[in-house]
Amino acid sequence: MNKIEHIGIAVADAKKSIAIFNGLFNSQPYKQELVESEQVETYFYQIGPNKIELLQGLTEDSAIAKFITKKGEGIHHIAFAVDDIVAELARLKAEGFQLIHETPKKGADNKLIAFVHPKDTNGVLIELCQEIG
Amino acid sequence: MNKIEHIGIAVADAKKSIAIFNGLFNSQPYKQELVESEQVETYFYQIGPNKIELLQGLTEDSAIAKFITKKGEGIHHIAFAVDDIVAELARLKAEGFQLIHETPKKGADNKLIAFVHPKDTNGVLIELCQEIG
Repeated sequence: MNKIEHIGIAVADAKKSIAIFNGLFNSQPYKQELVESEQVETYFYQIGPNKIELLQGLTEDSAIAKFITKKGEGIHHIAFAVDDIVAELARLKAEGFQLIHETPKKGADNKLIAFVHPKDTNGVLIELCQEIG
Repeated sequence: MNKIEHIGIAVADAKKSIAIFNGLFNSQPYKQELVESEQVETYFYQIGPNKIELLQGLTEDSAIAKFITKKGEGIHHIAFAVDDIVAELARLKAEGFQLIHETPKKGADNKLIAFVHPKDTNGVLIELCQEIG
């Protein structure tokens, strides 16, 4: 794994949260992107080599809305950048990790993504992502 | 803020968690450090420009043990590297953020550190850290 690509933070009210994180980072989101398949609106901050992604669910049954109902607002996942997501998923499967996605799918920010089940990783939801070349 | 310096993950059993994260990262902790003031044992992984810090509380009343009792294992905080922690704390205070530490203190990994209260940041506990030169 090459670096922390981003940390995803689940927020209930993106407008309110953007005001907060603008103050925290002394900057603004450089990009906003709707991921229809996940029913989520995303807002990206660049912090040096890393990103912070605010995630607001658009429907009650989106994964992010369900997460907030269950656990409250806060960190939803950590995404690690990899060069070859297919090879990395195969390696993790061989290591015994339970994969939420056995094959990568198209995510936000021009990435192929896949998630590892948090039950195997101390409750931390891990995303792998590979830039689509 | 320069980058995500590290993500701190609260774990109940460091030995068990190290076996898991060794498999996840295909590497090993490059450093182990006891922070007596926090009653916490820390284990660091390097992932490119970023670190993952596993945190195991050594006593029942350590902050990490209390966190796990309340919320379960998982991500405890995000630490951002800054050049001038005193200036950054002053800026955040002026922005209206509630600081857990108004002045920095000595933390793990040769850093001056200070925390921002998570009530102001969507439940995310934010640490600032500056390398001691």
